[in-house]
Amino acid sequence: MIDIDAYLESKRELVNRSLFQFLPVGAPSVLTAAMRYNLEAGGKRLRPVLTLATTEAIGAGNESVINIACAVEMVHTYSLIHDDLPAMDDSDLRRGVPTCHKVYGEAVAVLTGDAFLTLAFDIIARYGLIEGNADKAVKISAKLAEAAGTRGMIGGQVFDLLAEGKDLALDDVEKIASLKTGALLKAAVTCGAIAAGASKNQLKLLEEFAGSIGTAFQIIDDLLDYEGTCEEIGKPVGSDQARLKATYPALLGIEKARAKTEKLYHDALEALEKLDCPTELLAALAHKLVYRAN
Amino acid sequence: MIDIDAYLESKRELVNRSLFQFLPVGAPSVLTAAMRYNLEAGGKRLRPVLTLATTEAIGAGNESVINIACAVEMVHTYSLIHDDLPAMDDSDLRRGVPTCHKVYGEAVAVLTGDAFLTLAFDIIARYGLIEGNADKAVKISAKLAEAAGTRGMIGGQVFDLLAEGKDLALDDVEKIASLKTGALLKAAVTCGAIAAGASKNQLKLLEEFAGSIGTAFQIIDDLLDYEGTCEEIGKPVGSDQARLKATYPALLGIEKARAKTEKLYHDALEALEKLDCPTELLAALAHKLVYRAN
Repeated sequence: MIDIDAYLESKRELVNRSLFQFLPVGAPSVLTAAMRYNLEAGGKRLRPVLTLATTEAIGAGNESVINIACAVEMVHTYSLIHDDLPAMDDSDLRRGVPTCHKVYGEAVAVLTGDAFLTLAFDIIARYGLIEGNADKAVKISAKLAEAAGTRGMIGGQVFDLLAEGKDLALDDVEKIASLKTGALLKAAVTCGAIAAGASKNQLKLLEEFAGSIGTAFQIIDDLLDYEGTCEEIGKPVGSDQARLKATYPALLGIEKARAKTEKLYHDALEALEKLDCPTELLAALAHKLVYRAN
Repeated sequence: MIDIDAYLESKRELVNRSLFQFLPVGAPSVLTAAMRYNLEAGGKRLRPVLTLATTEAIGAGNESVINIACAVEMVHTYSLIHDDLPAMDDSDLRRGVPTCHKVYGEAVAVLTGDAFLTLAFDIIARYGLIEGNADKAVKISAKLAEAAGTRGMIGGQVFDLLAEGKDLALDDVEKIASLKTGALLKAAVTCGAIAAGASKNQLKLLEEFAGSIGTAFQIIDDLLDYEGTCEEIGKPVGSDQARLKATYPALLGIEKARAKTEKLYHDALEALEKLDCPTELLAALAHKLVYRAN
């Protein structure tokens, strides 16, 4: 039986230690401080942990892929900083502390986001400079760029901005969630699989798995935002409601939304069952994600 | 004798044709429109032309590196969009037309910049997926990330913001110019050299060449801004003065600043003379850049 909480805690610590090692030396001190501030704000480190767990499932150690996991988290961090900007979601709080632009001003916040995005690709390139890694690195870089790009997170954020105040159909909500959240969760798994040398079939099944838990994760997020309290999730409750954004529970009702997460969880497990490698860890992670309370 | 104007014109056309082919399909239409708008605003395409000219000097054709040249231009385009934002330089005009945020709003402008940066690394990764290119691609990606990153363009922009209204020494002005402008000009040359399979010694000399013309280019920019008229350079005259930024001519005087560009031009030629490949084209380009009138 896997102690998933202990696993998450230990991997989160590994990720945190590693992330800080990438803080720039010789850059303007306010920029380094702003980058440090965003990393210190913490977060679940879900994406890098998924990367690490995937490589373990395929049978590779953490040492070779921890940098890739950090790159994935940096893309996530960049997207939060830019999404929070006054011109975008105009959020004052993130992870329970003031957002980057509230502390460092808008200009530095834009540049701090840019810095994390650039650093992510820098890390992957440097991973690729190691003997024998170049082929994997270009595949990982391509997957991450696709997930982050116009047909991934950036596209999702634009659709989300355009959707404000409009009545959306469930299809639209699903599309936005799949681009804004699903794409990077999927890439976290895919990049780990590529780094670990997964076969084509393993990659396909792991992407199916990641697609299902990515959507489930977003629905849970919506549900927690719908039901939650400010203390529990660290951002103003109902901020999405206030901005009249359509969410899964708003469209489906709470019960049907919960049922959908159950269905997606079982889809994820089905994909895992077809894999020819140990999947207990990924199954436990999926359970944790779908049945989380914050 | 090289007809450098005809060369520039033909390469600029090649770059323009190629850039538009990378516009996303299936992305939100406002995002694609904003990306197209920024590409249509034109510009000298100096960086991608430098990339192409470098590969020609080393003896490679344009077909294999046009995508790399486009990636370099996209990093440049992203940086202009973000630098122009209200929270940064707050520029209303760029290349003679309204800036991205003036036309599409701040949110879309931030995301359009993000999209160009991400697309640049996407293009390099996809170049690396072609048989035999992976090693070159990771080197190019690393060089571009370094030039764009905290110890390159992003760092330079932060130093520049911090310098506003302060009395800067020449050293500071040089540092900012080398980070904000020099780093990407150098990367444009380096990336072309790597793609063309340059030797270590060729790479070193080409970087020296690019370093010199990069600084010269920035001084000329400052001089044109100092002396120019709005019609000639397409942005409000003296906008730098108005923001009390220190520039080369402000610190050195116009004559000494001009003399410095002459010296840098000759340094650039010296580096070229040591190269074991045809350098007439690069020399002609350097001359054109240093003696340009806009």
